[in-house]
Amino acid sequence: MDLHDVPTPALVVDHELLSRNLEAMAAARPGATLRPHVKAHKCTALAAAQAAHGHTTFTCATPREVAGMAAAGLGADLLLANEVLDVRRLRDMVAACHEHGAQVTVAVDSAETVDAAASAGVANVLVDVNVGLPRCGCPPEHAGRIADLARRSAMTVRGVMGYEGHLMMVLDRAERQAKVDEAMDRLFAAHAAVGGDLVSAGGTGTYDLHHRVGEVQAGSYALMDTDYARLGLPFVQACWVIGTVVSATPKYAVADVGLKAMATDHGNPTVELLDGPGADVWFLSDEHVTFTPHTGIAEVGQRVRVTPSHIDPTIAKHETIWVVNGHEVLDRWPVDLRGW
Amino acid sequence: MDLHDVPTPALVVDHELLSRNLEAMAAARPGATLRPHVKAHKCTALAAAQAAHGHTTFTCATPREVAGMAAAGLGADLLLANEVLDVRRLRDMVAACHEHGAQVTVAVDSAETVDAAASAGVANVLVDVNVGLPRCGCPPEHAGRIADLARRSAMTVRGVMGYEGHLMMVLDRAERQAKVDEAMDRLFAAHAAVGGDLVSAGGTGTYDLHHRVGEVQAGSYALMDTDYARLGLPFVQACWVIGTVVSATPKYAVADVGLKAMATDHGNPTVELLDGPGADVWFLSDEHVTFTPHTGIAEVGQRVRVTPSHIDPTIAKHETIWVVNGHEVLDRWPVDLRGW
Repeated sequence: MDLHDVPTPALVVDHELLSRNLEAMAAARPGATLRPHVKAHKCTALAAAQAAHGHTTFTCATPREVAGMAAAGLGADLLLANEVLDVRRLRDMVAACHEHGAQVTVAVDSAETVDAAASAGVANVLVDVNVGLPRCGCPPEHAGRIADLARRSAMTVRGVMGYEGHLMMVLDRAERQAKVDEAMDRLFAAHAAVGGDLVSAGGTGTYDLHHRVGEVQAGSYALMDTDYARLGLPFVQACWVIGTVVSATPKYAVADVGLKAMATDHGNPTVELLDGPGADVWFLSDEHVTFTPHTGIAEVGQRVRVTPSHIDPTIAKHETIWVVNGHEVLDRWPVDLRGW
Repeated sequence: MDLHDVPTPALVVDHELLSRNLEAMAAARPGATLRPHVKAHKCTALAAAQAAHGHTTFTCATPREVAGMAAAGLGADLLLANEVLDVRRLRDMVAACHEHGAQVTVAVDSAETVDAAASAGVANVLVDVNVGLPRCGCPPEHAGRIADLARRSAMTVRGVMGYEGHLMMVLDRAERQAKVDEAMDRLFAAHAAVGGDLVSAGGTGTYDLHHRVGEVQAGSYALMDTDYARLGLPFVQACWVIGTVVSATPKYAVADVGLKAMATDHGNPTVELLDGPGADVWFLSDEHVTFTPHTGIAEVGQRVRVTPSHIDPTIAKHETIWVVNGHEVLDRWPVDLRGW
């Protein structure tokens, strides 16, 4: 099957380019020094490819991701790096891990999240520490107290995590490094109070700026997006949405890749005719993107390649990844970790 | 079951408020003068409620929506108001309609879309006319030629459609009316050349500004969003995403309604504590929204109500609609028309 024959809009991953990214990361952060984040791709087949490159510990954002990874036999050491208060969902997740011989560690940052984890029968937790991003994580000075609460509930505290998401897009590398170092000072202050073997942090934008933490939680490196591309990292774009020009005029053309197939929260995607010129994007609506090719005009039936500005929410809109080698379709992978 | 017990993030529709919107629209545009657009809700149960209010003709944006509506017994007169070149998908859709005794009419705007429809065994088409929105639709002066092509391929041409989507958000009503009238002049010029009984146009923002067309294709009116709310229409917000505060500080709180649960292409959603104060939204990330309540602080475990700025792509992110009456959960409706 050829790329021109896949029904569109089609989420496409180039296996060769994906492999190149997985190799580059495995060389830089081998084995358990990387804990790939599956939220970026929500696909157990892709996670299996990461495991084949030596990474057998994984980061998840939702109980469903944890349960799905466990069921796929990828549950040797799963981290739910997110606060969850839903005891029923946590309990189902623990049961799925038990059924499949998987191990899960759950992030906590408050008495309430400790209580939820304990009530659900979670055995292992890790204290999520705020290292500067205004999102989850307790202040470093509260981390010891949270750890004590967890231990009093008979749970094992494996260590700490802190996600410096606010630093991913600091474009100057030296400045990014200095700020990561400051953030990690906060994390290690918390770790001193918490104890445990695990110190987990980082993401694709800072994967090579961590010299003290045991593991980095990068996810986007595998497929990339135009936002991360601005950092000049050694990872290439390996994922697109392929569309079809369904209407065309001499001034603009319209392809079937709209807001339901493509995230725009990091800005519009880039559009190019498949193996052809790039284009100026006018706007996306529910089902369509309107654009003008940089040279020539587009014709009805031509294929377009749309590159996401933000990979995670784009993937989450699709049921299937079409795995290709250039134009040749090799396989289909279900995006099987969607939902919550 | 109470709204406080639904697992979050949860897409919630208030049945009473939905009914109020369906009644208001059915009074303004009864029966076949409205052809509700199912792309806005992607839910056959909700479409059945629209049918119970007298609308038995429906508009769809994808072949899967058409096939799903046919299978649900709601296929008396379906319009695929979108250009599709994928003959296989069109053929499957035609087969589904045949199997369920449904009727489908397909929009065409080019020789290529006419050919695709004819090859797929489509019996009825309608010429999609550009009335000013730079998206699909042929120029009015080409409409007669497209209709001739379709008739030469032995298809019945039912008439014309034109979506004036660029006018939905013209805030001044008189200006909106004047511009709709101009757009409809273009549509009726095309209709004169095309013939057929059907003249279809409009949306929620212009539903009461159409005095000449036979039917209006509104969809968002059923559930609404904060963008359409700016127009002062007689429709109320009937849909939210309910979330849970999973982390909190004195300065801000974090709930589990992120970019994978909420579209932001029309701007950030609004956030309020359930039955409590509103909030300033800081930002959304993949899994979270960070916000500050206007009064007081939020506590871990509290529920939030997040109102979308754009209903269509928000619905498409969810598998289930929780149907409520105030806080009481009445039912669950599958969002069964997702995908393409």
